[in-house]
Amino acid sequence: MDVFKFATPEFIFGRGSLQYASICAKRLGASKIFVVSDPGVEEAGWVEKLLDVLRAEDLDFVYYCDVSPNPRDFQVRKGVELYQREEADVIMALGGGSPMDTAKGIALIVSNGGDIRDYEGANQVRNPLPPMVFIPTTMGSESNISQFTVITDLERRVKMTLISRTLVPNISISDPLLLGTLTRELLIPPLYDSLAHAVESYVSPIANPFTEVWSLKGLDLLIRHIRPALEHLHIDDLEQLAIAGSSSGMAFTNASVGLGHALAHSLGGMFDVVHGTAHSLLLPVVMRYNLPACKEKMAKIGEIITGKRYGSDEETAMAGIAALEELREELGIPCRLREILPDRTMLSQASHNAVKDICMLTNPREATWKDILNLYYEAW
Amino acid sequence: MDVFKFATPEFIFGRGSLQYASICAKRLGASKIFVVSDPGVEEAGWVEKLLDVLRAEDLDFVYYCDVSPNPRDFQVRKGVELYQREEADVIMALGGGSPMDTAKGIALIVSNGGDIRDYEGANQVRNPLPPMVFIPTTMGSESNISQFTVITDLERRVKMTLISRTLVPNISISDPLLLGTLTRELLIPPLYDSLAHAVESYVSPIANPFTEVWSLKGLDLLIRHIRPALEHLHIDDLEQLAIAGSSSGMAFTNASVGLGHALAHSLGGMFDVVHGTAHSLLLPVVMRYNLPACKEKMAKIGEIITGKRYGSDEETAMAGIAALEELREELGIPCRLREILPDRTMLSQASHNAVKDICMLTNPREATWKDILNLYYEAW
Repeated sequence: MDVFKFATPEFIFGRGSLQYASICAKRLGASKIFVVSDPGVEEAGWVEKLLDVLRAEDLDFVYYCDVSPNPRDFQVRKGVELYQREEADVIMALGGGSPMDTAKGIALIVSNGGDIRDYEGANQVRNPLPPMVFIPTTMGSESNISQFTVITDLERRVKMTLISRTLVPNISISDPLLLGTLTRELLIPPLYDSLAHAVESYVSPIANPFTEVWSLKGLDLLIRHIRPALEHLHIDDLEQLAIAGSSSGMAFTNASVGLGHALAHSLGGMFDVVHGTAHSLLLPVVMRYNLPACKEKMAKIGEIITGKRYGSDEETAMAGIAALEELREELGIPCRLREILPDRTMLSQASHNAVKDICMLTNPREATWKDILNLYYEAW
Repeated sequence: MDVFKFATPEFIFGRGSLQYASICAKRLGASKIFVVSDPGVEEAGWVEKLLDVLRAEDLDFVYYCDVSPNPRDFQVRKGVELYQREEADVIMALGGGSPMDTAKGIALIVSNGGDIRDYEGANQVRNPLPPMVFIPTTMGSESNISQFTVITDLERRVKMTLISRTLVPNISISDPLLLGTLTRELLIPPLYDSLAHAVESYVSPIANPFTEVWSLKGLDLLIRHIRPALEHLHIDDLEQLAIAGSSSGMAFTNASVGLGHALAHSLGGMFDVVHGTAHSLLLPVVMRYNLPACKEKMAKIGEIITGKRYGSDEETAMAGIAALEELREELGIPCRLREILPDRTMLSQASHNAVKDICMLTNPREATWKDILNLYYEAW
């Protein structure tokens, strides 16, 4: 077995754990906290809740919320200016992937200088970042756990992936009660992002015994709880989904992801397609493409999804993929890429972008831009 | 579900990973490294290997090896003096639980002052410790992962357990090649310590979904690899045991342990009984005692040990306990406490010590000192 690394943040998990935000910030030496969130989270009332927790401990803070889905490079730059002007020293993000990834971008630039695009790719970060406490209000990105941040370069219309151990937050506070304001529609895309994390990290060539445990745990919990959670939005199921998200997060931050993420990043950068929606459309197609390179592992995935083994590894794997397609139909969400992207002429450019995505390095099967174009067509 | 915390160090795992010791120390800002090991590890040649790795990168270091099994308070004090005199700034431990626990004790006192006994119990540490890089040469203690350190107070003849998040090393470098110089006799006690970690963390009242995964993974790997590993001492099995040890380590550092550890600590403090040997004698007895309080979980344990389920939870659990007793006989190690402790008159005092052990707080079933005495007698 090759040498591998495994790093995760410190976790605080549980209903009501939002109240620990002040203690965590204090422990990390905060004198002024830079709080990053977005308008949606604000509307749900969580920003005010968090700020109340900080106020109750007389903690000083600055609030920044110029964050959009698929967060942009200029939103990082604006945040950096505010952080520096206000002389903040601890970064706290509250929200989904967008505020958390923006917060990481800001933390990176205030400590390392330059522009966010200077750090695209893996291991480009030199200096340690200011302490980070991240509080997710949804699942999917697991940016509160991961060494990833994904920021859109507006000029190139490319979603840049930045990977560095320094991007792992110090503390992740995961309070399942915060999932309680999500609607069914808001919850579906992150669930598919988590499914993609579990599957892609498991078949990654750099998967290891420590990540495999979490990939399978995450997948198992997702499969068990997606249907009941979406039907009733009950806290018990939401809590299990939060655990599932964290599980696949611990897997993919250390084993990375593959082709599916490369394809989804490219659609996000060019057409602003919601990341999780891209996965719901692409995951089965990508799994079928990767199958020849990892039959045994895909069979294990199939076994978890369907709850049984079929005649051969390949049959078991294919049954799993088919079951994912059935789930998608059952949920009544788009099943074809054309439903959200009527014009397919730009998919050729999307393929050229995708093949350069850093996640291609950790896919179990190689793919040319033409292979990728065929996959897009298959999903279209 | 209650709020829970989950923290682990950064891991570097794999054959040959010892060579990363320098990079890790540098990353933590080392200008002079305080290396702690013991005569046995030195004799096996690993200390020289590590020092060569440090020399190759021109890293300055001080070497300290006045460490015995069940390490003593005065060994911590002597280390503190040397650390301060030499103005070291990063602590590196190489060895089993004894050098690692001693190193933690030293790190604690140089940053927090006072005497080691001032910090007995949970959460008594105020200041952050100097950066720690730990390299285990055996399994069992998992001090390279855990927030525990156990130091013997010679005056009271008590093994003090200290628990604090600050005692988690920054980086754990686990190189399975280092297990290659262990003999069968050296390997058996740590294997039993790991078994006890897996079992006790799983039934702990503060177990949570994140720790349960690791308890079961550790137990499963131990059961699969103990026999072949002890027969051939082949690196492939040793590597799996190292993963098993780390797995149960990640579980117990966050879920703690119970009665079995309280009993073992007491025997260690009073009679210098090797910690893992105590577990090999006590574990089945402790499991039977705890069974009424956690039948379902003990059945899961039994299922993993025996590979099947019996009629009821209780039967499955009992089959697992019986299988552990068979394993012990098969290995030809002592099966009765009397074999290593001919006089049982002091067991009453040992019970009084055990009932005060902090691990009693996380046992699923309460026990008085008389219950404990009966358990000692049962094992005797």
